Parts: sequence; structure tokens; C-alpha cells
Amino acid sequence: MPLSHGGDLDAARKLFPSAPEPFLDLSTAINPHPYPIPDASPEDFARLPDAESLKRLTGNAATAYAAPSEANVVPAAGTQILMTLVAGLVPPGRAAILGPTYAEHARVAALAGHAVTTVPELAPLGEADLAIVVNPNNPDGRVFGKGELLRIAEKQRERSGLLVVDEAFMDAGPRGESLSPHVEEANIIVLRSFGKFFGLAGIRLSFALAAKELAARLRASLGPWPVSGPALTIGKVALGDGDWIEQTRLSLGKAAHRLEVLLQNAGLESVGHTELFHLVRSPEAQQTFERLGRAGIFVRRFEEQSEWLRFGLPGEEAAWRRLEAALRS
Amino acid sequence: MPLSHGGDLDAARKLFPSAPEPFLDLSTAINPHPYPIPDASPEDFARLPDAESLKRLTGNAATAYAAPSEANVVPAAGTQILMTLVAGLVPPGRAAILGPTYAEHARVAALAGHAVTTVPELAPLGEADLAIVVNPNNPDGRVFGKGELLRIAEKQRERSGLLVVDEAFMDAGPRGESLSPHVEEANIIVLRSFGKFFGLAGIRLSFALAAKELAARLRASLGPWPVSGPALTIGKVALGDGDWIEQTRLSLGKAAHRLEVLLQNAGLESVGHTELFHLVRSPEAQQTFERLGRAGIFVRRFEEQSEWLRFGLPGEEAAWRRLEAALRS
Repeated sequence: MPLSHGGDLDAARKLFPSAPEPFLDLSTAINPHPYPIPDASPEDFARLPDAESLKRLTGNAATAYAAPSEANVVPAAGTQILMTLVAGLVPPGRAAILGPTYAEHARVAALAGHAVTTVPELAPLGEADLAIVVNPNNPDGRVFGKGELLRIAEKQRERSGLLVVDEAFMDAGPRGESLSPHVEEANIIVLRSFGKFFGLAGIRLSFALAAKELAARLRASLGPWPVSGPALTIGKVALGDGDWIEQTRLSLGKAAHRLEVLLQNAGLESVGHTELFHLVRSPEAQQTFERLGRAGIFVRRFEEQSEWLRFGLPGEEAAWRRLEAALRS
Repeated sequence: MPLSHGGDLDAARKLFPSAPEPFLDLSTAINPHPYPIPDASPEDFARLPDAESLKRLTGNAATAYAAPSEANVVPAAGTQILMTLVAGLVPPGRAAILGPTYAEHARVAALAGHAVTTVPELAPLGEADLAIVVNPNNPDGRVFGKGELLRIAEKQRERSGLLVVDEAFMDAGPRGESLSPHVEEANIIVLRSFGKFFGLAGIRLSFALAAKELAARLRASLGPWPVSGPALTIGKVALGDGDWIEQTRLSLGKAAHRLEVLLQNAGLESVGHTELFHLVRSPEAQQTFERLGRAGIFVRRFEEQSEWLRFGLPGEEAAWRRLEAALRS
């Protein structure tokens, strides 16, 4: 059974019906220690989200992501709908995606009418009408330098192309390579995910950063209430909490290192990572997937790369021990 | 200052800086007695919404809205993004909107590249590539019969057109005229809003009902996590709560009648309504708007119809008395 996304525990339960509950879900790459949810007021649920709060959220996101200004930032209820709208900003043509990578990019580009190719290196992206790079890449953690990416954008500019950089894993990553500060200069759209780093994927909150004119077009497509009340309230506080952000960068870095060592001790070598996951390659990947599954631990496998497994970070100490024991058994 | 939407209390505060707080917001048409929010689990915020819950939500919505099947139902984070995607299902052509009505429909149709006209009667809609009717209409409460609408859809079919019926106010309205049960037969898309009737506009939850093939296209554009975890958890429970739905239809009907009498006693005649609002026409509409505003009561006025005011339902008994007193002063 192909598992096209992480996080689907119902699918895991069907695959491993006698696994001990609760399942330990390491199939997603989400911070297991979420930002503490501020008490949501009933008003957040009842009233239409107000324009002033949306402005505050946008402002805090602009600062957190080092965007040139608030006018370059477009909040939305998740990255998916932004991908769909962004793919539609370019008339149907040639889309090139640096891959293998997060499969939704190819799906959405094809849906928008583009002829989609996946390329292993950056160079051919300059010839595409729509070029898409995930940086750092998921699942192999590859990092692309800002300079290289800006050169791609420059080449595309001549043909009115668009470069989309999905920086879903940039928050705890090599932030110096982020194109966020450059969106006003060029035909670049940066996608940022709130849910992964802040551990709150359920609230559906993401941002597109783009030149003001492109940002205005995206904003117009999303309408006046692009984000839910609870997401707005939580997002504006969390994105403004510099101390938590700083602490979390450090603790995620440590956890990622701990995971690398744990995997290594189990004979699984990490061949790529971000602070939120490690990718291992092993001829026994499928057996390991099964063994972990039977022990109630769900990791991410990949339909087209049968030797790969991706491990998200365990949270509680017990989860770490459970993973360690299951890998040893 | 034009107020393009209801619910913007920050705008109200700027207009009426010395009004007593808290403002009583009657500018939206949202049930003031929300569905009791089930205790949200932290998991709803942290984890990606799961496929099984989404399926349950969709099933309950299909039943509540009398859609032919679950496969005809597309959940989304609010009606706005559905409007954008629906307008894009038809190649740029002629869009006709039964109006005056909710202004977002014209904005979004134009954004999708259509030449937009607003027409006062149904007949010309049959000639449009994209025809849009709000039923019952907002703000005048006009109701269009199912038979008339199906004839429009039939005429449009010959030209591969699409009929969009926004049934945002149908839940407590003339449900026999809903086109929900007919979406599989024809080129019809019905939009349903969760937030208004259930009093939870902040969670952003709406549905498009469409023929299976069109529904699949919309679903593909929205991606695998179209709705937030809290919206999913609340929505699936609320849409399955037949008793609450039935009670609320009755109580909203009574409240709408009480509001009509109250307005009448203040010399304001209702010229249109649904169970969630009354529209009054008065040569003194602007003065009434100002007087209410100074008393901290915010109602909806309309840029292009200066004699109109729309009143949403007060909730608590104190709110009813406050409105009564302010209208009498």
C-alpha cells in the first residue's frame, strides 16, 4: 500500500493491526514539543478573524522570516493552497522540480497545466517557466546556497519565469541561505511553514513571501479571512516569541544529533537530515519499517526509493527509549 | 470610510472612538449562540489532521446538507478559497451575478478573468459561462425556487457553463429550495457555510457540493489537509448533531421574528431577511448607523445603497435591551 504522506496513523493501524497502542508517530517531520498553546478565547472560534490581528500576524511573520516588509507576506491556511495558487501565477508551461522531493509540488504543478520534470541538479531549473526547490530539501536534507538560487532566478527572469523556494525546514536550518530577504528584488516566491518548527501542524498556517505585486495577487485569491481565529491568535504570539524560537533552534539541533547517534548505533547511517528528521538508506529498510511498525512505531517510507526511511524526532524520553529498544530487537 | 465587510470591530472603534465598550457587533450575520465547542485535544493543534476524521466530517456534511453522497462534498477552510477555485473551473468568459449581493462573488469572478455583470433577475444568468446566485440572497433575503434555478442550469449546460449557488443562509432557511441534492445531475456547484449557522465563523469551515468529477478537481486543488484539526473535530460533531440543528432552526426563527418586531417598533421596516439578519430601508439609515455606533452598536451599512442597514441577531438578553434602548434614544 503506497503511503503518500506521513502522519496517517489510521493507515499505520491498518498495516499493523496488532501493534501496541499508542502508536509512536515518527513519520512526520514536526517538532514533537509544540509551542505552548495560548488559551484560545471562545471569540477566536466564534467571530470572523479581524483585520487588525491578521496585520499583527503578518508583521510578526515578516520579522521572524526576515522578509523585506509586511507587504511581502501572505498568510494562508497551510502551504498546500499556496502551492496551488503559486503554480497558477505562471501560464501553463514547463515546470522543473529539484528532486526527489516532497511529492505535492509535482502533483500541484501538473494540476496547473505545467509539463513537469524532476531534475537532480539546479542548473536546468533556469530554463523552466516554474522552477521549484525545497531548501533544505525533504527528505535528503540537501542545502542549496543563496547565490546559486539567485542566479537561477536571474536566468528565469529573462523568460518571465518564477522560482519557488519551499523553506519549510529553514527555521532551524541554515538561515543564511534563505531567500526570504530577497523576494522583493526578483521573481522569487518563498514558502514558509509555521506548523513544523512550532509543532502545530493541525492549525494549518503557512506563509508565502513574494514581491509586493505578486503578494497582492495571492492575497486577493485568498480573500479577507485566509487564516482561522485560533491559528491567528497562536501564530501571532508564537512568531513574536524570539526567546522560544532561539531555545527551540538549540534543542532541535541537540535532538537531531541524538537521533543520528541512536540510528548509527542501530547500524542505520544517516544520509541526509534537517533538524526535524534523519533519512537513512539501508538494504533492509523495508524489514526495518515492518519491525518498527509491529512495535507500534511508524516511520516514513518512500514508494520509489525502497532503501530509504525517514525518522522524525521522538519527543518524550520514553519515546526515545522505545525507538532504541525497537531498533535493537 | 467604506466598510466592505461586516465584523470589523477595529474599523468600528475607529469610527466611534468614544462609544461604550464592549461593542455589540450586529454587523455580521452569524448565529450569536454558537455550537458548544467540544474540548479540543492538544493533538488537534499539533498533528496533521488525519484522513479518517476528514472522511467523517465529509460524511456528516453530506447528510446534513442532503448531498447525493460523500464524494460530492469538498471541505475547505472557508468559502472564500472555494469561490476562487470555482471561478477558475470555467475558462475566462462571461460571469453573471444575481445582485446586489455579497460583494466577494464579483471580485473573485473578475480576478479569475471573467467579464462580470450584475443582473437583477434570474433569466439572463442562463446566457453566462459562470452564473452566481446567493440563495437566500444576502442582504435582501430573496429566495429563488429550485425549479427556476434548475432551468438556468439546464440552459447553461448547453454552453458548458456553470451555475454556482451560494447557500450560506440556507441552513435555517427554505431548505426545500436547496440544490444540494441535485449537484450530481448537472453543472451546479453549491456552497455551504458552516460558520454562520453554527456560530463559529472563526474556525473557517465551508463546503462545496458538486458532481463527483468537479468535486475531485476542487479536492485536488486543496490538497490533503484542507481543514484545520480544531475545525475538523468541531465540524464533524456539530454536523452530526441533529437535535442541536433542529433546535437551532426553531430558535433562530423566533429570534429573527423578535428582531423584526423590535425594528418595526423603532419605525424601521424590514424589507428582507433570513433567519440570521433583517435588512431595513430608511431615508435615515446613515443617521441611525451613526446613532447606534455612538452607543457602541455596530450594524452593517452598504456603500452603494445608502438607505440600507442590515441587522444581525443580538444574543444575550442584555444585548436585545441595549439595541432596543439605542433605537429608542
